[in-house]
Amino acid sequence: MKTIDVCLSPELMHLYKVRDRTVVVVDILRATSCMVTAFAHGIETITPVADLNTCRMMRHKGFIISGERDGKKVEGFDKGNSPYEYMGPDIRHKRIAFTTTNGTQAIEKSKEAHKVIIGSFLNLSTVVKYLLFGENNVLIVCAGWKGKVNLEDTLFAGAVIDRLRNHIEPDCDAPLIAQQLYNDAKDDMVTYLKNSSHVKRLDKLDIHKDIEYCLTIDQYDVLPKLKQGVLTLI
Amino acid sequence: MKTIDVCLSPELMHLYKVRDRTVVVVDILRATSCMVTAFAHGIETITPVADLNTCRMMRHKGFIISGERDGKKVEGFDKGNSPYEYMGPDIRHKRIAFTTTNGTQAIEKSKEAHKVIIGSFLNLSTVVKYLLFGENNVLIVCAGWKGKVNLEDTLFAGAVIDRLRNHIEPDCDAPLIAQQLYNDAKDDMVTYLKNSSHVKRLDKLDIHKDIEYCLTIDQYDVLPKLKQGVLTLI
Repeated sequence: MKTIDVCLSPELMHLYKVRDRTVVVVDILRATSCMVTAFAHGIETITPVADLNTCRMMRHKGFIISGERDGKKVEGFDKGNSPYEYMGPDIRHKRIAFTTTNGTQAIEKSKEAHKVIIGSFLNLSTVVKYLLFGENNVLIVCAGWKGKVNLEDTLFAGAVIDRLRNHIEPDCDAPLIAQQLYNDAKDDMVTYLKNSSHVKRLDKLDIHKDIEYCLTIDQYDVLPKLKQGVLTLI
Repeated sequence: MKTIDVCLSPELMHLYKVRDRTVVVVDILRATSCMVTAFAHGIETITPVADLNTCRMMRHKGFIISGERDGKKVEGFDKGNSPYEYMGPDIRHKRIAFTTTNGTQAIEKSKEAHKVIIGSFLNLSTVVKYLLFGENNVLIVCAGWKGKVNLEDTLFAGAVIDRLRNHIEPDCDAPLIAQQLYNDAKDDMVTYLKNSSHVKRLDKLDIHKDIEYCLTIDQYDVLPKLKQGVLTLI
């Protein structure tokens, strides 16, 4: 039977061998939710970029530049980190260069993997099917918050593990922890997350609407995949 | 209000500033459970040692040498990592040099802290009181398993946080995760842990009795504290 494990923070990536695995990168609030939304609305490619300057320079090459640091849009950038910015006709057939506090760093650290896909609650069932049909063992990489573990990414990992429980075996304690938390939370994730530090942090930025949206399951069936450093649809 | 946080793996220690904090090191299965047991049975000091060779050499200085790797006693050592080895009259007024796969490494990484104490379910209430009466913010450092998160250390962190919930504020999502898991598990921790990878690993070594013992709450009221690299009773 295939196995599934969860890396609860990018700072633990060195403990996992990923060369033969399929890695799912997740940053529910809000990088990977934005990415999935953008692909569902016709973006052609997204290039994850680790630092602000590299991202800024890509505007000259025709990219829309998206940047977020500490939950806020970076000054001078075209777009920030709210999924509602990625629904308009202005992104259709365009390319985005995207840099965020946690999500794009997690993608960077996952590059060695056999396959890297982008997960969010918005495309949960599509992620689950892809993992089920593939041959590889799986690692879910939670973006966390500046290296620390966060609740919402852990819940997403738990949702995937719970749906695959009869098909893919948990590899260690982290998947069991994630699955348990998801089962505690699944009936009302918005309320469950209300006390989490990340949601409190974002609350100050007045983005309740974003949070509810990012916790909506199966809004889209797109699956972004990393190929030579660039995300495209499978 | 003071704050409490949880470092779910020693590999995440670099994310936490500990110089002004009280750190509780926990390795339920079984290093810190052994240490607490040994102090309750009259050991004078325990010197945590990171590597096997240093530990081996300390026998010549009159130490009992205790060593465990991968759950098994190290060949040629006086004692291994079962708490039942630390209950006899042979340890009274003696000094132990102790090296384990995870626990002593976690102590090593915590040395910069203002205060370092040793926690286990066996001395839970004493740990809680110490944190309650102290002025410092708190960090619980889970020893985990070779850098990965484990369930039993996380449950201990949750038990402490749950008991202090009206007095010390959680600092981030990790304490919330630990507290939630503890509340799921507390009515029957032995059954709850049955499926965890660490317990499965130890099951192969036939140590059910150890596991049940290590999950017993408030067996003792001793509190080992690190002072210049050596554990003694407060």
